[in-house]
Amino acid sequence: MDLGDRVLVERNGISYEGVLMPSRRADHVVIKLKNGYNIGLKARESDIKLIEKGKEIKSQQLDRPLKDKPGLPPVSILSTGGTIASKVDYRTGAVTSQFSAGEIITAIPELEEIANYRARVIYQILSENMRSDYWTALARSVAEEIERGAEGVVITHGTDTMMYTAAALSFMLKTPVPVVLVGSQRSSDRPSSDASMNAVCAATVATSDIAEVSVVMHGTTNDDYCTIHRGTRVRKMHTSRRDAFQTINQHPLGRVDYLSRKVETYLPFCHRGEVEMELNERLEPRCSLVKYTPGSSPEILHYYIDKGYRGVVLEGTGLGHVASDWIEGIGRAKEENIPVVVTSQCLRGRICDRVYDTGRDMLDAGAIEGGDMLPEVALVKLMWVLANNPEEVVTLMKTSLAGEISHSIPITV
Amino acid sequence: MDLGDRVLVERNGISYEGVLMPSRRADHVVIKLKNGYNIGLKARESDIKLIEKGKEIKSQQLDRPLKDKPGLPPVSILSTGGTIASKVDYRTGAVTSQFSAGEIITAIPELEEIANYRARVIYQILSENMRSDYWTALARSVAEEIERGAEGVVITHGTDTMMYTAAALSFMLKTPVPVVLVGSQRSSDRPSSDASMNAVCAATVATSDIAEVSVVMHGTTNDDYCTIHRGTRVRKMHTSRRDAFQTINQHPLGRVDYLSRKVETYLPFCHRGEVEMELNERLEPRCSLVKYTPGSSPEILHYYIDKGYRGVVLEGTGLGHVASDWIEGIGRAKEENIPVVVTSQCLRGRICDRVYDTGRDMLDAGAIEGGDMLPEVALVKLMWVLANNPEEVVTLMKTSLAGEISHSIPITV
Repeated sequence: MDLGDRVLVERNGISYEGVLMPSRRADHVVIKLKNGYNIGLKARESDIKLIEKGKEIKSQQLDRPLKDKPGLPPVSILSTGGTIASKVDYRTGAVTSQFSAGEIITAIPELEEIANYRARVIYQILSENMRSDYWTALARSVAEEIERGAEGVVITHGTDTMMYTAAALSFMLKTPVPVVLVGSQRSSDRPSSDASMNAVCAATVATSDIAEVSVVMHGTTNDDYCTIHRGTRVRKMHTSRRDAFQTINQHPLGRVDYLSRKVETYLPFCHRGEVEMELNERLEPRCSLVKYTPGSSPEILHYYIDKGYRGVVLEGTGLGHVASDWIEGIGRAKEENIPVVVTSQCLRGRICDRVYDTGRDMLDAGAIEGGDMLPEVALVKLMWVLANNPEEVVTLMKTSLAGEISHSIPITV
Repeated sequence: MDLGDRVLVERNGISYEGVLMPSRRADHVVIKLKNGYNIGLKARESDIKLIEKGKEIKSQQLDRPLKDKPGLPPVSILSTGGTIASKVDYRTGAVTSQFSAGEIITAIPELEEIANYRARVIYQILSENMRSDYWTALARSVAEEIERGAEGVVITHGTDTMMYTAAALSFMLKTPVPVVLVGSQRSSDRPSSDASMNAVCAATVATSDIAEVSVVMHGTTNDDYCTIHRGTRVRKMHTSRRDAFQTINQHPLGRVDYLSRKVETYLPFCHRGEVEMELNERLEPRCSLVKYTPGSSPEILHYYIDKGYRGVVLEGTGLGHVASDWIEGIGRAKEENIPVVVTSQCLRGRICDRVYDTGRDMLDAGAIEGGDMLPEVALVKLMWVLANNPEEVVTLMKTSLAGEISHSIPITV
């Protein structure tokens, strides 16, 4: 059998039908199912039955050169990998993460009506492999594009860790133009793909007046509009839905209607040209997010201190609690000049450690209240503050630097 | 000044007005603000100004004996502490966690219309101090009450970790009668308290046909109905709102209208008397929930293996991913017979590690897909499975034992 053939694979009494695709392991077959997903199965050659030979289909020409149209603003597209940058091999049906930014533009003709593009491939990785030094390099690339005259920047990114990257760029960059992260939950070969609409809406925001780091993704499961999320307030809240991204503890920045390309905003935002570009891209990677669970050992906190971590974000329960036996560790961290920031595994709502005894003891030991910051955003912010202004860490962690904390409202709300 | 006096405290240019309350520290004053919350402030005596002397108010008689009314079913109320069990000292306004179950009943006269009660104080703790051996003892107490003839059990519990306790009881108990956990987000001295309505709705569910472990809490921010959540599907999703509890990845079991006390159900459920009582209360506490964040060190996983943990739940990104450099650690865990279960920090949606390369590599290394289980529930379940049926851990972690996993539906949904 050849790649591209339609096959039936039997495993433990279940039959899988699909197109045979390249596999990286000899003992595995990978087939593309009807729903567009690839599935890897441990199978021997004898488990595979041929249904139909694959047809030879010529690969579509994707690399036609970009032509500038007069009157359209210059926008840079930086690709980092992920599903939105996945390219379908038309012979095998395989999806790979090697679709360059230039190819994205030529594959989605509507984009050409919105802007003139400069495209760069920054990374070709699955976003679970992102890390802080990549964020730093990416921020430098964004700054370069802005300095070269880009009036907007679109970053294509895997959805898994897009919220972390968005937060990192939000702290590292002050930007006079829109910086928009976009991804897709379904690859472009699937009927339900969100890649085109998300890309078109992202380009629209990149040419708008919203000069902030934002995430633009499907607003509903329909193809009606995309939501514009502030980079420090957004979270992936579903593993597979197209409207997985949600703004937490605030209204979204706004939305883009897909057909009319009209941008509506719901919040005050930073306007185009309002600030000069400023890049502070250093991060302290030795920070950790620790999720507290009932009965978990306080030794876990001591482990991070012993290992030389420079900061810890606790994801506590409710208003921001850990068990009483963790408080000694918080005190030790304080003595060793390691900030411990408290956030909540509830995700929604505000930390308040002055209400109950445990919280007050945590504050006495030196814990820093994270306000209504998302735990993941608090982690990225702590990395940034420790690298850029370690003397002011307590004050800065409680102050909104990029829209990540709301003014404290009475907890009765 | 005396406890109970109305005072003004000045701190850093902010004035706090409220009732002076007992403080556990000499350098702190605690005052009860108008909104009902207590706040602890570092202050010297000279920072405190008297506004009005407190009045001597006689403590309300709360301990009148319970009288059985004919025709009402016997329900046991077990109290473990938390806000719903907090008692207001009417002289000082202080809220303590020492309200016994008997006092709850006499304080909420509507309860007496629903059932005849037997009340026991099991713990008097803040729920962040809950842990697995307390769950075991609590499950034994519930089983005792059922064996003594209780036709329903209500457990009052702090809201911080109620979801973990609910999950633990769901795995430990097969129950022929309703077992209902209830808490409150606002203590009973506050105008917006949810304590009474939640308790009344919980007692109503305890006398209903829903013989499952459930959580009953405010369904909206109004006082209209409570939602009945399955114990393995519920999560506290807001730090302070009264409708903080939500069922994730499923419909709720049902709801209770507060005024009419009518119970509606939305899902098939286990009916009264359908199963015999069975108690399997052992847990393996050496399990850990590890939340993956970009760039976090794979050494973290090795730490838990080195420390003798018997199981690990990973809270991965998206469909269930960690960075490629964590895969070796998953392989080592497998070799050392330590199950690694993968869940998602998205919370909503289903794990599928067969779609992308990273996921397939994780499965090859021995990772176990957690389906659409909540990470916290997967942790508690792993503790239970390891203690009760360690040979079958892979199969059981993928099988719904107490409604915690839905039948796999195609990932396109």
